[in-house]
Amino acid sequence: MSTTRIYTLTISCPDRAGIIAAVSGFIARHGGFIVEASYHTEQEAQRFFMRQEIRADSLPFDLPEFKTQFISLAKEFGMDWQISDSAQKKRLAILVSKQDHCINDLLHRWRSGELNVEIPCVISNHNDLCSFVEWHNIPFHHIDMSNKKVAFENIEQVFNSYHADVMVLARFMQIVPPDFCRRYPGQIINIHHSFLPSFVGAKPYHQAYLRGVKLIGATCHYVTDELDAGPIIEQDTVRIDHGDTVDDLVRYGRDIEKTVLSRGLRCHVEDRVMVCGNKTIVFR
Amino acid sequence: MSTTRIYTLTISCPDRAGIIAAVSGFIARHGGFIVEASYHTEQEAQRFFMRQEIRADSLPFDLPEFKTQFISLAKEFGMDWQISDSAQKKRLAILVSKQDHCINDLLHRWRSGELNVEIPCVISNHNDLCSFVEWHNIPFHHIDMSNKKVAFENIEQVFNSYHADVMVLARFMQIVPPDFCRRYPGQIINIHHSFLPSFVGAKPYHQAYLRGVKLIGATCHYVTDELDAGPIIEQDTVRIDHGDTVDDLVRYGRDIEKTVLSRGLRCHVEDRVMVCGNKTIVFR
Amino acid sequence: MSTTRIYTLTISCPDRAGIIAAVSGFIARHGGFIVEASYHTEQEAQRFFMRQEIRADSLPFDLPEFKTQFISLAKEFGMDWQISDSAQKKRLAILVSKQDHCINDLLHRWRSGELNVEIPCVISNHNDLCSFVEWHNIPFHHIDMSNKKVAFENIEQVFNSYHADVMVLARFMQIVPPDFCRRYPGQIINIHHSFLPSFVGAKPYHQAYLRGVKLIGATCHYVTDELDAGPIIEQDTVRIDHGDTVDDLVRYGRDIEKTVLSRGLRCHVEDRVMVCGNKTIVFR
Amino acid sequence: MSTTRIYTLTISCPDRAGIIAAVSGFIARHGGFIVEASYHTEQEAQRFFMRQEIRADSLPFDLPEFKTQFISLAKEFGMDWQISDSAQKKRLAILVSKQDHCINDLLHRWRSGELNVEIPCVISNHNDLCSFVEWHNIPFHHIDMSNKKVAFENIEQVFNSYHADVMVLARFMQIVPPDFCRRYPGQIINIHHSFLPSFVGAKPYHQAYLRGVKLIGATCHYVTDELDAGPIIEQDTVRIDHGDTVDDLVRYGRDIEKTVLSRGLRCHVEDRVMVCGNKTIVFR
Repeated sequence: MSTTRIYTLTISCPDRAGIIAAVSGFIARHGGFIVEASYHTEQEAQRFFMRQEIRADSLPFDLPEFKTQFISLAKEFGMDWQISDSAQKKRLAILVSKQDHCINDLLHRWRSGELNVEIPCVISNHNDLCSFVEWHNIPFHHIDMSNKKVAFENIEQVFNSYHADVMVLARFMQIVPPDFCRRYPGQIINIHHSFLPSFVGAKPYHQAYLRGVKLIGATCHYVTDELDAGPIIEQDTVRIDHGDTVDDLVRYGRDIEKTVLSRGLRCHVEDRVMVCGNKTIVFR
Repeated sequence: MSTTRIYTLTISCPDRAGIIAAVSGFIARHGGFIVEASYHTEQEAQRFFMRQEIRADSLPFDLPEFKTQFISLAKEFGMDWQISDSAQKKRLAILVSKQDHCINDLLHRWRSGELNVEIPCVISNHNDLCSFVEWHNIPFHHIDMSNKKVAFENIEQVFNSYHADVMVLARFMQIVPPDFCRRYPGQIINIHHSFLPSFVGAKPYHQAYLRGVKLIGATCHYVTDELDAGPIIEQDTVRIDHGDTVDDLVRYGRDIEKTVLSRGLRCHVEDRVMVCGNKTIVFR
Repeated sequence: MSTTRIYTLTISCPDRAGIIAAVSGFIARHGGFIVEASYHTEQEAQRFFMRQEIRADSLPFDLPEFKTQFISLAKEFGMDWQISDSAQKKRLAILVSKQDHCINDLLHRWRSGELNVEIPCVISNHNDLCSFVEWHNIPFHHIDMSNKKVAFENIEQVFNSYHADVMVLARFMQIVPPDFCRRYPGQIINIHHSFLPSFVGAKPYHQAYLRGVKLIGATCHYVTDELDAGPIIEQDTVRIDHGDTVDDLVRYGRDIEKTVLSRGLRCHVEDRVMVCGNKTIVFR
Repeated sequence: MSTTRIYTLTISCPDRAGIIAAVSGFIARHGGFIVEASYHTEQEAQRFFMRQEIRADSLPFDLPEFKTQFISLAKEFGMDWQISDSAQKKRLAILVSKQDHCINDLLHRWRSGELNVEIPCVISNHNDLCSFVEWHNIPFHHIDMSNKKVAFENIEQVFNSYHADVMVLARFMQIVPPDFCRRYPGQIINIHHSFLPSFVGAKPYHQAYLRGVKLIGATCHYVTDELDAGPIIEQDTVRIDHGDTVDDLVRYGRDIEKTVLSRGLRCHVEDRVMVCGNKTIVFR
């Protein structure tokens, strides 16, 4: 809820000495004031990751000019990099089915200002949540799922028409086609109702009940073309015991799901998540 | 650390009305004072489970007489039942390899009186922990593992020679042969260094690292003839992040392993764990 | 979300042998089927507490008849007791100020059927949440707080006019007058935004920040005439670190507050909470 | 358990633009390879804190030369700073009473190589732990507490005679005199058996039991001249319920105490803890 305008610079490149000095030197030469700085080396990949928040008003130029100035340094170190502007909010399309605990939680965080995004539309294969969504003055799009191919074409069209950046599967309960997933790498965020990699696929609470585990969990991850196997952003667990029925597990699970989804989403929105292979670096 | 002598009565039988009344009526008729009482119905199995702690000095008879008196009631309800005496400590044989964090924890709880058991012997396929064990005045038995068949015959012989009740695999790191497991149902307790059912088998921390999970865990379970698939007694998890190496996971894991093992073991020792199919009821 | 109608019998009385036998015997004689049973002895007070869920359809009489039949047994043991009917939902009046995270959470649990209560009205000293509450078809009452004495008379009148059972202070942010508290013992439930007894009173997150604690918490408790000192029903904590500002603490805190309030409230609604002195027994 | 030799540079100074650039520029100019880097600005104090791990073998000079080279930069920014060498292990004197769960845990971490320190001596006002300590080949010093003034002079003398750096009060159960505390700022680490600031002083588990809290905790902190009020390094909590006696709280508490102490101590030993006023920055 900070009102300071921030540029967030995220970089990954092959690891070597002098990267921090080069980047912070560049920023310092232009008078840039670093608010937050995080670094990580991924040992196996020998790859370096960094994230820096810079006060926008401390720099003498705007984002396009920053990019022009920074490009030669980026080339020298072989950087993958991007810079974002906190004044330019990310646009989240939320996809839901009938269960509303996650979207109820997300919309509350949005309307209270905690989640600093725009929500241009909600997409659903059911009409149950139409009234609730529209009370928030957010357009609600019903998609007929009888033909899955056509349905996902429609979803894609709605998503693009709103110039949205991210699809949030807030208990959407539909398997997204692999080719669709491949077109939006790092842009589709799902909440799976188990502690992955346990209990992939359908009815994870039922699977957990049958196995007799003593904790259940939830996992927020990027969607890839392999079901429930994408890079994990956030997870958490909650204790259960022998007295809990499957319905109790579902109930406890709802609380974990919405917490884990909102935490993971917040990190994504603040450009705190970087992907390396099938793993994430999450700078907090 | 209570000094009151307690009889612990555990019962399972087909569920129907009147079980609690019949059992508590029996106890009350003989003046028995119930200190703690727990009940559970396993819905799928339509089976009822109960555990009652009774003050030994409130009953007019000893355990053999209790058993004689109780038998007709037990037959009427088709009960599987047993009664134990807190004055008769369980005898734990601890099996270890080279890693000592679990046995260090267990022996401390034992020598401080927290874990109310006898530890008649420690068995290991290495000699590393001999001096530490013997400082506690506990016999240490080294078993040569070059021939696994002979080795497990030797383990069985040592176990039996000490009249031990329970084998605790405190990071024993050896796969117990299926037929051996079948001979000791509910008597072999293992600590597995993952949150089962994730990461069964070898090198679970390495598996967890490669998958990029955000929590790791440990599982205390009864050993059955299927590897890492027996009834789970206790589990817990701990948060990790992208900065943690496999060595860090191993280090965090040690703390979870010893906590989960000691909690699960305590429940077993106090007759709080009952098995139903491949699940446990744990009365706390 | 069970559809089975349940009678819940809660009893406290001086501890002695035979109480469980007497009560379960009474239930069994009438064919009653016990679904869940919990017992506890409070050692200092030498007082026994029990809670039993009985399937309504297994008994041959209704609640008034149960009460008539049970009374002689209750007198014999000197019992404080009550029995409730799951078909008779508790009526919660929710009191709020401007912050809406708790009421947003509670109303979602209510409209999804998770929280099995009636919410006859919402009372607030601000109008901010009027539209949100009325979208749920729940009457919204604005109370002017300029004269506190008159304000609490108005609150009491609204509360009584709806025949509500419980007042839920869902971040009401007003100190309730002591005499008002004394008139509603065990009927006013508050969520305090600290891990009591730390940080009583105003601005607990600010207090926590200044002290440099590494965890913050929330406490759900019954309101008594001493500020933030009533019997605690539920608490939880969350980890923070040096990088978190007071605003971050407030944000983390919101998630803990709503979780702790909803858990505590659920226990109260299901008659799982019994008070002994300034402590609670919470049967789960 | 890394075998790479590391220099750890910790700095605090007034906040301004260019600090990271200046320090990382200095390191880069000398070919230094930064392994881990952490930054924090304490807003109220307008003070900047940083910690950097540098591979020793990447620098062309030793520590004395580093200090000479770095001094002008340090002056320019008004830095409080220090640099330590992982090859130079910190020397911990452990002070205990009769309770051994913390020292048992610490000595295990030490002998397994997890805690990378030297433990030149153990000091106690009882002889109970003499044999256990001496089994580790660590000198054990008994101090008579009948005259507290003399006793603390003796402690100081033993501490100094071993050239120890840190005193670890591992359930020492004696109040350290204020003037003694003032002579060793940031060098005395205590584990308090409550979640501070709740339950300062004696018998915190008893206090917690009487208050009826639903979680208990432990706090690792630097000792200052005000009892239990020094800067907090680490805390944690564990769930209890109405069924737990004071003895149960003590038992649960032991597990939290040793975990919290070992975590806090590890951070201190790795120069991850910096003090600002009465708060700590803990770089993980």
